[in-house]
Formats: sequence, C-alpha cells, structure tokens
Amino acid sequence: MAGFSIDRFVDLYAHRTSGMSASEVRALFAVASRPEVVSLAGGMPFVQALATDDVLDVVREVFDEHGSAALQYGGGQGAPGLREQLTRLMAAEAIEGDPEDIVITTGAQQALDLIGKIFVDPGDLIAVEAPAYVGALTAFGAYEPRYLQLEIDDDGMLVDQLEEALVRGERPKFVYTCPNFGNPSGVTLSYDRRRQLVALCRETGIPIIEDNPYGLLQFEGEPLPALRALDPENVIYLGTVSKVFSPGVRIGWALAEQSVVQRLVLAKEAADLCGSSFTMLVTERYFADEERWRSNLASLVETYRSRCRAMLEAIDEHFPDGAMWTRPAGGFYVWVTLPEWFDTRAMLAAAVERRVAYVPGTAFYPDGRGGNQMRLAFCYPSEDRIREGISRLGALLEDEQDLYRSLHP
Amino acid sequence: MAGFSIDRFVDLYAHRTSGMSASEVRALFAVASRPEVVSLAGGMPFVQALATDDVLDVVREVFDEHGSAALQYGGGQGAPGLREQLTRLMAAEAIEGDPEDIVITTGAQQALDLIGKIFVDPGDLIAVEAPAYVGALTAFGAYEPRYLQLEIDDDGMLVDQLEEALVRGERPKFVYTCPNFGNPSGVTLSYDRRRQLVALCRETGIPIIEDNPYGLLQFEGEPLPALRALDPENVIYLGTVSKVFSPGVRIGWALAEQSVVQRLVLAKEAADLCGSSFTMLVTERYFADEERWRSNLASLVETYRSRCRAMLEAIDEHFPDGAMWTRPAGGFYVWVTLPEWFDTRAMLAAAVERRVAYVPGTAFYPDGRGGNQMRLAFCYPSEDRIREGISRLGALLEDEQDLYRSLHP
Repeated sequence: MAGFSIDRFVDLYAHRTSGMSASEVRALFAVASRPEVVSLAGGMPFVQALATDDVLDVVREVFDEHGSAALQYGGGQGAPGLREQLTRLMAAEAIEGDPEDIVITTGAQQALDLIGKIFVDPGDLIAVEAPAYVGALTAFGAYEPRYLQLEIDDDGMLVDQLEEALVRGERPKFVYTCPNFGNPSGVTLSYDRRRQLVALCRETGIPIIEDNPYGLLQFEGEPLPALRALDPENVIYLGTVSKVFSPGVRIGWALAEQSVVQRLVLAKEAADLCGSSFTMLVTERYFADEERWRSNLASLVETYRSRCRAMLEAIDEHFPDGAMWTRPAGGFYVWVTLPEWFDTRAMLAAAVERRVAYVPGTAFYPDGRGGNQMRLAFCYPSEDRIREGISRLGALLEDEQDLYRSLHP
Repeated sequence: MAGFSIDRFVDLYAHRTSGMSASEVRALFAVASRPEVVSLAGGMPFVQALATDDVLDVVREVFDEHGSAALQYGGGQGAPGLREQLTRLMAAEAIEGDPEDIVITTGAQQALDLIGKIFVDPGDLIAVEAPAYVGALTAFGAYEPRYLQLEIDDDGMLVDQLEEALVRGERPKFVYTCPNFGNPSGVTLSYDRRRQLVALCRETGIPIIEDNPYGLLQFEGEPLPALRALDPENVIYLGTVSKVFSPGVRIGWALAEQSVVQRLVLAKEAADLCGSSFTMLVTERYFADEERWRSNLASLVETYRSRCRAMLEAIDEHFPDGAMWTRPAGGFYVWVTLPEWFDTRAMLAAAVERRVAYVPGTAFYPDGRGGNQMRLAFCYPSEDRIREGISRLGALLEDEQDLYRSLHP
C-alpha cells in the first residue's frame, strides 16, 4: 500500500485495506480542479440550475411543518414521508414500490456499500457489467469479492456472457448493472436484453442490483421499462436524488423485498445510525411540489441534451480516425475507445498540462483493462467549455497518433 | 436469523449478517414511542432548546456565502472550512488538531464503522470497555471481531485488566473507550487511569479509540484531559456535533494521524462518496458564532444538570434496597445494577405496560452479560416526566422483589 505517510499502525490494518489505494489519478484530479482546466472528468450535476432561494423556502416550510424534529435523530429506515414521496418519484418511471420496501441511504453509494456488506463474503463471486461505475467497484471491493465481468456493446451488457458463466457452473451472488445511459458507458440496455437478463436471473435465483441514477435524464427516444418493473421480486432497485435535485443532500435509496430491506436497515444502523432528518425532510418537501420539480427537471434535461450534442459534434470534428464513442440517449457520459496502443492513464498528465481532464478507462474494470478507453462527462461544463476541452483533447490525440506512427512506421 | 419474512435470498447472504439481528427489544421500543410511555430508553438530545429560526438564518447565510456549492458533491475528507471550525470546537476541550488530520463522518457512528472496516479482519481481537456503547458494538460487530471486555468501576475502565491480557499474550487491534460520562455507564475515567491507559497503549503500540460525544456536557466538577491530549500520536479521537448542536445534521469526525486519515478517507468514499455539503456548511456556520453556540450549550448543560438531579433524587426515593447506580458528572445516562436475580430484559415488557421504558443491560456487552442492569437516560423527558417514570419503574422493581421473595422465602 504505497503512498501513505509514516505508518505507525502498519501491521494492524485489515486485509481489505490492501485493495484500497490512493491512485496517482487522484493527485492529477487535484490539479485538474484549477479553473483553467476544462474538466470532462467529474460527474457533477449542474446544480447551478436550482435556485437557492427556492431551497431556502423549502427549508422554511420544513421548520414550519416539523419544527425541531428536523434537527433530531430519525429511524434507520428513513423518514416515512420521504419514503412515501419517493414512491411517487419512482412512479414517474413506471416503477411501483411500497414505502415499507424502501431504505433511505446516503446517496445510492451507501446502498451499494450496504449491499456489499450483507451479500459478500471474501472470495464470493459477483457479476458486474464491464465497464462499471467505479464507485460500485470500490464499495463492493471492500468486501473482497471475485468478479465476473460482463462486457458491453451498444445494447448494454452482454447477457449471453452471464448465461455462459452459469453453464460453466459459476454462480454469482448478484448481478450489478446501470441499465439507463450507464456510467461510464452512456449506453442503454435494450429491451430484449432486459427481458433476457430478468428471465435468466429469476430462473437461477440470482438477485439483480439495478442502479438507476440517470433514468429521468433521458433526452432522446422513449424510456424502456425498468428491470424492477419487469420483475419486482428479484430486483433490488437503487435510486438517488443527486441528479434530479441535489447531491449535496446525500439522499439515495434501495427498493427491495422485505427480507433484504430488514437486513439493509440493520446494516445502515450499524454504519451511521440513520440519515439526516434535515436533508430528508428538505428532499421530501422539494418533491412535494410536482410542478416545481418537473419544471426544474425539464430544464436540466434540455441543458444536458445541448451539452451532449456539443460534445458529440466536437468529438466528430476533432478526434482522429480509429476512435469510437458511444452516443448516449441521456445521462452524463460519453465513452471513448481508442486504438489498442493508446494508454489513456499515462496520457492524463499530458492532457492536464493541455488544460483538459478525463477519467482513464482502467478505473472502471475490476481487472484493470480499458487502457485505451476514457470517460468524458458533459454534465457540468458549458457548451463552449466542452467544445474547447474536446478540441484540446483531440489535438493531443492527433499528436500522440503522429508520434506513434513515426515510431512504428 | 429468526424474525425475517420470506427469505428469497436466504442462502446468498454474507456470514457477517448472522450477527445482525432485529431483537425483540426493538419491537418493544416501537410501543415505547407512544406518548403515554415515559421513555428513559433513547439518548435523544433535547434539540427543542435550539431555535429553528436561528438555524433558518444560518441556512440563509450559507446560501449567501456559498450559493449552489452547498447543493453539490464535496471531497471525501469533508468541507475544509468545517474541519477548520472543528479544530476550534475541540480546542474548547484543550484538544489540539490540524484540519488535515480530520475526516468528517456521518455522525461519530460512521467513524466507528470505518475504523472497524480498516482495522478488523474476522477473528481479530479488539478491546472494549464493558459495558460499552451499543452502536460501537454493532459497528465493529459487522467485521466479526473477538472481544476482550474490560470491566468498569466508578473510575471507569479497569486498565489493569488490559495489562493482564497483554501479559497473557493477547494483543488487541485497538482499545475502545468513552472516557467522559460514558454511554451507558455515566462514569468518567479517572486521571490516573487515563495516564495508565495511554502509557500502556503507547508502550505496546495499540491505538486507542477515544469516543467523546459528551465531553462538553459536563455539569459537575472539572474536566480531565482528553486521552488525545495526553498522547496525540497514538489516540484516534472521535467527536460529534449531535449533542452540542443537532444529530439531524449527521456530522461527526475522526481526528487521527495521516496514515489513518488517508485510509479512513478511502473507506469513507467507498461507503458514501462524501458527506452532505449542505449540512457541513450549516454546521460550520453555526459554530462560527462562538457566543451563540456557547450560550446555547450553557443552557443545555443547565437542562441536563437539572434532569440528572431529578432522576437521581427520584431513584433515591423509589428504588428498592440492593439497587446501585452511577452518579454522572455530565452526559445523558445513569447506569443501574440490580440484585443478581433480576432479568431486566424479561422485565421490559412489564415496564412498557406500566408506561415506562429503559434499555436492558445486556445490549451493552458483547457476551450478553448485564442481565441485572439497565441504562436510564435523563436527556430527553422533562423533570416531571422523569420523576413519574422513575416512580413507575421503582414500583415495578418493588413488585418484582416482593414476588421473588415470596417464591424464595
């Protein structure tokens, strides 16, 4: 475990910490936060679209209605009123759920951690789409699983690869996927694949973890049914308000059947007793005004649509031959695959020097493949900044390609 | 794992879940939340003392100063301004600390969970005072340790028992203690024991986890130096604003040396990415006005002093001969030890029927001893309610004693 300062307790740490490392990428991102760098790295939602005066009004309403209860401890499962409200939010995506089947978590990230905690013993096999959300890999990673990586194409996860693994006798504890405009891939799991995945997992008794932070941020095409809607009993559904309201309130949730919910609540109480009554009640109140949240959401979707288009057009114009990329119908990310010999991790320092940042592809695979891939986020910078950033990155890719060709004529 | 509904995934859960159980006590507490029941069970601070208008002003100031940054993601270590502010709060207890050595957590509870996560492999030995905070036991318990229980007397933990264990060749990963007005004991670790503990642990390289939620809530005597102040290098200090501001903002922290901090930050990011920017900035702003927080705190201390006195007087009056109890100099709890044959766990249902609740002693020991003990909290109910509750409980104890004597003449 390199990079740590004087290690007074070095012989005392748990084995699982050997998988936790502060990568050099982290150090680069500190540099990338300088204003002159166009960051296409972080997945920060465009919260500036939300009027802070509106939120202040919401806080005032919370204190008027709940008084000091907003400042007190709450139950481990989360505020009942918010759980009720979240069933309505899910209904906007045609997902049915009972408030009793919801556990509020600190962002959906905590739900991933608690799922790891209740399902994974060291050495257990779990199946994840590959590439997968890096936060899911770090959350699960703390419980020391083995991974079955299920590759993706433009229709999402290759469910056939799961089937083949099952035929080989492998039996993952669960399958993790982000089916709508996935992070980092930007691709959407097709309807046929959804049916195939749900049928296969039901037949074999393997729960599906459906992570859906971006479902309401669709800017092209029609929504597909959630996995949870196709099989409510076998799917553990994860939601969050981070992308449709605010990540700063840290409100996510899991919707699952009771036997899972009860274990998640116990694990939640062990982890942090309960969520913030304050931000739970603020979130409940914010979503109580359907006209307000739908109108704010519609404006966000427009913003992301334009930014995505700006990014795709700029990529078209500036990226060299041989590069391939996904064309998301929603969400935050474009996923780029370069010719095999590219090393996006090694190239990141040069990119930051040219005042543009991205996330190298290796971060999104348990086995560290993806060296020629990168994730580009269009959610946060303005269209002009996106165009500028892509132009800088395109110039770097051209230069790298010229250098490579001069060395491999 | 009894008590769970249809267990679709029963063969899939991790081994650690076998230690997570929804006890019958939990069901009784649901009943105990009815208004006619005087609850001496829960450790809820008296947040009604805090004016919600003041907090609304604080929120307004946060939006004025930080704008939508209060609604955005933040770094895993927590808002730098809050960490700075917390060093000043700790200075009020003569504890020095650098903001870089602080990790903000979701209450101190999450710090306990993350400490378990980075230190404890299944089967590892850890030393805890006995009785100990039940939340520490559930947090650590998820990582499947073995326990060395260090008993207490009126001067706190018996450090001699740690020394004897070390002589026997046992070597715990760490020692956990709540030295000021402990939960559940209400006792304070004496100065001599503090020096003994710190010297012993430094000599043997065993880190001390010092959990100090109540330090500023002292209503009798003079403060003793924190363990952290006696040995900054070997003590991992845990603080929280739950008892001096609000538990509803879920802000706690760990202060530790860099090699521990770096691991805690990685574990925190895996667990929930980051804390709530919103409640971190609100907390920072609240403590920025020293006159305000000190005056609110002074009024809280007065309240708890009166409530503690009311409880002790009522116990004196109503409890039968043979009962013993602690006399706290601060904090929230009185710890009662009854004659050996009492079973406070079995008696709880009868107590709730008589409209009074407490926490049975067994909850606070890893090995389930403490059957004749109970924790009584004076923090939340009014003095009149406390007197009424203790009177009901005293009558029950008398009746139980009469019954026992009639059966064992």
